[in-house]
Amino acid sequence: MKVLVIHGPNLNLLGVREPEVYGRQSLEEINRMIENEAEKLGIEVKIVQYNGEKEILEEIHSAIGNFQGIIINPGAYTHYSYAIRDAIAGVRLPTIEVHLSNIHSREEFRRHSVIAPVCIGGVYGFGGISYILALRAMKLLLEER
Amino acid sequence: MKVLVIHGPNLNLLGVREPEVYGRQSLEEINRMIENEAEKLGIEVKIVQYNGEKEILEEIHSAIGNFQGIIINPGAYTHYSYAIRDAIAGVRLPTIEVHLSNIHSREEFRRHSVIAPVCIGGVYGFGGISYILALRAMKLLLEER
Amino acid sequence: MKVLVIHGPNLNLLGVREPEVYGRQSLEEINRMIENEAEKLGIEVKIVQYNGEKEILEEIHSAIGNFQGIIINPGAYTHYSYAIRDAIAGVRLPTIEVHLSNIHSREEFRRHSVIAPVCIGGVYGFGGISYILALRAMKLLLEER
Amino acid sequence: MKVLVIHGPNLNLLGVREPEVYGRQSLEEINRMIENEAEKLGIEVKIVQYNGEKEILEEIHSAIGNFQGIIINPGAYTHYSYAIRDAIAGVRLPTIEVHLSNIHSREEFRRHSVIAPVCIGGVYGFGGISYILALRAMKLLLEER
Amino acid sequence: MKVLVIHGPNLNLLGVREPEVYGRQSLEEINRMIENEAEKLGIEVKIVQYNGEKEILEEIHSAIGNFQGIIINPGAYTHYSYAIRDAIAGVRLPTIEVHLSNIHSREEFRRHSVIAPVCIGGVYGFGGISYILALRAMKLLLEER
Amino acid sequence: MKVLVIHGPNLNLLGVREPEVYGRQSLEEINRMIENEAEKLGIEVKIVQYNGEKEILEEIHSAIGNFQGIIINPGAYTHYSYAIRDAIAGVRLPTIEVHLSNIHSREEFRRHSVIAPVCIGGVYGFGGISYILALRAMKLLLEER
Amino acid sequence: MKVLVIHGPNLNLLGVREPEVYGRQSLEEINRMIENEAEKLGIEVKIVQYNGEKEILEEIHSAIGNFQGIIINPGAYTHYSYAIRDAIAGVRLPTIEVHLSNIHSREEFRRHSVIAPVCIGGVYGFGGISYILALRAMKLLLEER
Amino acid sequence: MKVLVIHGPNLNLLGVREPEVYGRQSLEEINRMIENEAEKLGIEVKIVQYNGEKEILEEIHSAIGNFQGIIINPGAYTHYSYAIRDAIAGVRLPTIEVHLSNIHSREEFRRHSVIAPVCIGGVYGFGGISYILALRAMKLLLEER
Amino acid sequence: MKVLVIHGPNLNLLGVREPEVYGRQSLEEINRMIENEAEKLGIEVKIVQYNGEKEILEEIHSAIGNFQGIIINPGAYTHYSYAIRDAIAGVRLPTIEVHLSNIHSREEFRRHSVIAPVCIGGVYGFGGISYILALRAMKLLLEER
Amino acid sequence: MKVLVIHGPNLNLLGVREPEVYGRQSLEEINRMIENEAEKLGIEVKIVQYNGEKEILEEIHSAIGNFQGIIINPGAYTHYSYAIRDAIAGVRLPTIEVHLSNIHSREEFRRHSVIAPVCIGGVYGFGGISYILALRAMKLLLEER
Amino acid sequence: MKVLVIHGPNLNLLGVREPEVYGRQSLEEINRMIENEAEKLGIEVKIVQYNGEKEILEEIHSAIGNFQGIIINPGAYTHYSYAIRDAIAGVRLPTIEVHLSNIHSREEFRRHSVIAPVCIGGVYGFGGISYILALRAMKLLLEER
Amino acid sequence: MKVLVIHGPNLNLLGVREPEVYGRQSLEEINRMIENEAEKLGIEVKIVQYNGEKEILEEIHSAIGNFQGIIINPGAYTHYSYAIRDAIAGVRLPTIEVHLSNIHSREEFRRHSVIAPVCIGGVYGFGGISYILALRAMKLLLEER
Repeated sequence: MKVLVIHGPNLNLLGVREPEVYGRQSLEEINRMIENEAEKLGIEVKIVQYNGEKEILEEIHSAIGNFQGIIINPGAYTHYSYAIRDAIAGVRLPTIEVHLSNIHSREEFRRHSVIAPVCIGGVYGFGGISYILALRAMKLLLEER
Repeated sequence: MKVLVIHGPNLNLLGVREPEVYGRQSLEEINRMIENEAEKLGIEVKIVQYNGEKEILEEIHSAIGNFQGIIINPGAYTHYSYAIRDAIAGVRLPTIEVHLSNIHSREEFRRHSVIAPVCIGGVYGFGGISYILALRAMKLLLEER
Repeated sequence: MKVLVIHGPNLNLLGVREPEVYGRQSLEEINRMIENEAEKLGIEVKIVQYNGEKEILEEIHSAIGNFQGIIINPGAYTHYSYAIRDAIAGVRLPTIEVHLSNIHSREEFRRHSVIAPVCIGGVYGFGGISYILALRAMKLLLEER
Repeated sequence: MKVLVIHGPNLNLLGVREPEVYGRQSLEEINRMIENEAEKLGIEVKIVQYNGEKEILEEIHSAIGNFQGIIINPGAYTHYSYAIRDAIAGVRLPTIEVHLSNIHSREEFRRHSVIAPVCIGGVYGFGGISYILALRAMKLLLEER
Repeated sequence: MKVLVIHGPNLNLLGVREPEVYGRQSLEEINRMIENEAEKLGIEVKIVQYNGEKEILEEIHSAIGNFQGIIINPGAYTHYSYAIRDAIAGVRLPTIEVHLSNIHSREEFRRHSVIAPVCIGGVYGFGGISYILALRAMKLLLEER
Repeated sequence: MKVLVIHGPNLNLLGVREPEVYGRQSLEEINRMIENEAEKLGIEVKIVQYNGEKEILEEIHSAIGNFQGIIINPGAYTHYSYAIRDAIAGVRLPTIEVHLSNIHSREEFRRHSVIAPVCIGGVYGFGGISYILALRAMKLLLEER
Repeated sequence: MKVLVIHGPNLNLLGVREPEVYGRQSLEEINRMIENEAEKLGIEVKIVQYNGEKEILEEIHSAIGNFQGIIINPGAYTHYSYAIRDAIAGVRLPTIEVHLSNIHSREEFRRHSVIAPVCIGGVYGFGGISYILALRAMKLLLEER
Repeated sequence: MKVLVIHGPNLNLLGVREPEVYGRQSLEEINRMIENEAEKLGIEVKIVQYNGEKEILEEIHSAIGNFQGIIINPGAYTHYSYAIRDAIAGVRLPTIEVHLSNIHSREEFRRHSVIAPVCIGGVYGFGGISYILALRAMKLLLEER
Repeated sequence: MKVLVIHGPNLNLLGVREPEVYGRQSLEEINRMIENEAEKLGIEVKIVQYNGEKEILEEIHSAIGNFQGIIINPGAYTHYSYAIRDAIAGVRLPTIEVHLSNIHSREEFRRHSVIAPVCIGGVYGFGGISYILALRAMKLLLEER
Repeated sequence: MKVLVIHGPNLNLLGVREPEVYGRQSLEEINRMIENEAEKLGIEVKIVQYNGEKEILEEIHSAIGNFQGIIINPGAYTHYSYAIRDAIAGVRLPTIEVHLSNIHSREEFRRHSVIAPVCIGGVYGFGGISYILALRAMKLLLEER
Repeated sequence: MKVLVIHGPNLNLLGVREPEVYGRQSLEEINRMIENEAEKLGIEVKIVQYNGEKEILEEIHSAIGNFQGIIINPGAYTHYSYAIRDAIAGVRLPTIEVHLSNIHSREEFRRHSVIAPVCIGGVYGFGGISYILALRAMKLLLEER
Repeated sequence: MKVLVIHGPNLNLLGVREPEVYGRQSLEEINRMIENEAEKLGIEVKIVQYNGEKEILEEIHSAIGNFQGIIINPGAYTHYSYAIRDAIAGVRLPTIEVHLSNIHSREEFRRHSVIAPVCIGGVYGFGGISYILALRAMKLLLEER
């Protein structure tokens, strides 16, 4: 079971960027958490972080045939990247949307995700734990199939 | 560690109600899953299902001093019950919003939750698994405190 | 053939409440009209009036297996009770929405029914006669099946 | 007692046009149903079908002094013909709006009727039966006067 | 100097239709007023009333080369007939929009004219006098050219 | 002179719930203030608190013939309970809407009251004093009649 | 017969201000036109121009008992001065709204008048002639009373 | 304790202006009521009425150091005068918004106050009594500080 | 292969009407272009132009059984004629929407087509060439079937 | 005559991605069709596909002086890339917008193109044929110049 | 080179009014900064502050022939004074809009300026420095002409 | 003092692209102006131009620790790049938004900046001078700290 984990734009700033919103964990710490959990769950993970929409699109494209599922935190692209939406719909892999913060208790524009309708489900508001939960959900979903 | 799990209106119909949307699991089966998971996590759970807004409000009120966290699937009240929102904000317990289905890939009105802004986070789209994930998130959140 | 007739909130005030809008007939008089008509049509009716959303939900739930159709005047819940909408969609019984007054010639908010999309059809504007027509429609619909 | 029944644009296609939405009955079959019912009720009916807004307007105008009530299925004009609205308001005859399908469970634009506010009431969603119910309502309304 | 005066849909009902809104003058009386005024002003008028959008369009088309200006009361078409708007813009004759009633103190939808932007100006709210004023305005406008 | 005072949902949490918004007074303290004031004004008061919409509706219904006026703090129901609006309109007793906090300086959704249009007037923003003022207003209003 | 003519803000710039929109006539020239016409019609006019909302309000107030009608070009106040609207509604004198330009063929915000609903009617788009027409309309209206 | 009472535009017309909305009391009668009440409460009041936004602004400015609180009925400025809003926010004195009529049961635009968010609270719908209640509220508020 | 080409309202003015928008070609010249192209493609065409909605509706109706496809330039009806939309959906023939001008670079209202959703595709912005392209598209589409 | 053909994001998935929407043709097959047609028309084409907004921008920039026209299928960027809009407006080359599917019969957001207003025209809904038609249109347009 | 600097309503409160938003500089200090800068740049400035819309309008009017440019901080009038907009458009002098605070990071209503479209440009967010920058911009703009 | 100057998409076209909107200066000329001014002010500047969102994001990221402030003209990204907004908020460096043209006097969509709320202030409408002013503002701001 192989799962692709994609961190979107600005997530490389984690720990630096607005810690009162996103917490003090760095992206590396989160990645280590994800890898540990994946190992426990018997999932092989590839973790990438891209600031570019194009790089995210092409990573999603390349998942066809190589991964059974995608976990994505689209960062700010959540709110306008219909291109990422189309990529996810196009590759037809089960995809889970993840957010570190509670996007519903912040600015109005963060409440709308253009990507959510093409995902299976989502997890938001638990900091790095959001990814861990998504990983477990993916495991359970893929086993059900 | 004690956690209150609230199922909102119509969830007693689970397994009967629109299985193509909500899956074929009955509420009892989901509750058993929750209890099993809770036991594994060392969490004491109380699970209730109410069709009435009032009953949900009063259950939330009574959580003060008795529970450390709340997991709630507000059902259709998600979209209009400012009263439940006020109750959650009032009791000041960490609360997680849960949905069985992906509320973002259904009717437009289901995309807006009046309750999300006063919760810590949410999980949606994974059927009964959504509750399991929420329980794990609650465990991790409460341990962090 | 058994049909459940549900009167929603405030309808117990009929005859008292704004007679220039709702007419001078009391709820009892309307119920007698319904019963007479039902008898003529060979329909067994159960008629209830509830002010509470919960009571309406649970009445709808209990219709499964006991009734072949539902006639409902959701009163003010028409405009916001997504919970009643979900209950109707959940029990999958043919349902007809009824209103005493012409909801389109009153305040703007009365023009929008959150319940209509899950019903088979509707009748509005004819006072107590609206129920009579709904009963006849139900008879014809059920016979067609 | 004379009642004018107006079928609006495209209703001549009935039976041909989108039968999964409008049913398989032809307009002629519906008209025969109307005539039978009218006879039973002791109502004299004139039934017309027009594709043109102008023809509908002028038919409504000519009803003054010749008919006691109007039953109209304005078809697509329902959603924008303020001219038909003005005609109905102008002739001051009790008018009932009828639709074959449940206009509330289709495209968003079909949920808004510019004509409803000047009618007495409406019936929708019962196929040809909608007209039958309207006829009975008209009978009862006119007798009350 | 030749001016075309067009009365739109339902204006043939004048005197009959909602006299508390449109006054008790019949269309004939208004037409006589227009003709008298036209004679005084040395204007040759052609006055027509059409219920059909098509008839209005074609009358406007035929004005090219035959009239120096158009006075139009588009009735309910005011609010949606982009076709009449295009016709007026197409024939490039100075056009004045006229309304009997104050369209701004009635229903919300009457406040928006799709035709006004392609006219030179407008007069509303003075009953039959609106036409008289439009005629004088036309006279003064055409003399200025 | 008998006046019914209704506290809506979550008001039983007063003193506990978000004291930075609602103040530190408990509901009991406010009720004692109300009773004292009522006594001074020679008004007999009945004070109730309900979390349920149904209970509020039925309390309002039962006021007919028993009270001369109603003072209501509808809590979160302010923003969506058209059922409470209809109950107030139905019983036709002078009603005053009261809020502890300034609903206009909080979240956007709190600025809209569906209940205000059927009340005589309102008082908001003065904590428990809002009720005292409403009581005095009611006294003066009822004396004027 | 005495009529008050009010020119609103910036109209003193006429002839200077955007002549491609407002024409090349100065305010004085327009005033002379108005006075000539008034004389012909046997109307006594007082003509004022104010840039201040307050000055316009107080002029309207002072019209009570001194004038039989008001002609007002509210300039930019047209679009937001609810205070002028209230003043006109308050003095209860027949009022005609006048605009030099066609407010419907300019910026979107110019299409909405907050003042129109409390006037009898309006004239727009004819430059200085708009006032002349309004004067004639006022004459005819006042004679009818 | 000194309190500034400001009456906004058109309130000088009271008793004259739309008595079916604002009542038959003149502004002088209301002022006398206010003065009597103030005397009873041991408050020194200054009462002013201005039609001009500027005059209101400058009166508010001059309150700094001279008054402990402001009671304002901003009249029509309620709905658009962000300048008055800024003045109130600027002087940082506790301010109460007052309206004679129930602004929520009139035209839609009257439901929105741009001033309310910077006030402490408000009273509306009780005619002259609204001021009396505001005065008592101010007294209680200032004593609490 | 038979194709019906429908020109909508005002298109008879082509060459006369706003040539800076629609070009200098007359409708006859465009029709000759269409006929030439049709001949080359081995398509039999019937070309009609109607100003009336009714005439367009009935022409579409009569296409059943007589034509394999429809090319329509609905002119201004594009933006509001739900009746034409229903007719196209009803006859179930492949239909292509054509516009001479780029409807997206003109007034806002021209950007919305109520007809597009029931067509197969569209071509706009190329003057008379738009029809030629539509004809070629139709040929290719029909051959594919 | 040289024409630049740009395929936007995700179009490399063609044949794979949602074939029920976009058809079963691969991008290579479409490119071969384009090249064949170009050869027939005597047009030299450069065909590119980019997933990145930046790459599209820079390709458009480089067209200045090298191509006489651009054919672009902006994919999902259609709906939000004001940057591509500015690039097209900036290079001032005639540009045609192309879509494989009928963007008007899919999700609401697909109906709005931010790019259309700066293009000459567009073709949509014909699968790979859309490009062929665009190529022919470009040929005819460029020859006219 | 003469430049008119206009401070709008409430700016006289500077230093007093909400210093956390507007800073601690008084208006006099800002004016001294402006005068110093003007002297350095060889610009003659007239600086005024008005709370009244009328006073601002008339100051703008009087600039014709006396000043080469205007710098204006319209304060709260920014958001609704179409009258000031018209005055600026009317006098046709290059005008720069200035704000002390970042109007885009405050309340939603502050993001919209009705005045900006008729200005040449704007500077906001730099406290008193905003004026200094505007002065330099004006100098450079006027020298370019 | 080191300041990063970022030119966004399409700005490399300056002098070529729509000179009637953006002026005839090339980007190089503007850069030379900026460098000259920076030298005068004793600021070390790095100037970059990127068409890609990703490149802008990463440039902003790399500013941490290397620059004391950022001046950015986000071009079309102004209107939708929440990713750039997040990057600016994330690096927590004072940022000034710059535009060459007056974005408020162009298309409606240009009036909304998603980036402005996280900047300190902005300058727009002065062509290349906008940057010069921003540089001076930055100097003054940084000196204040």
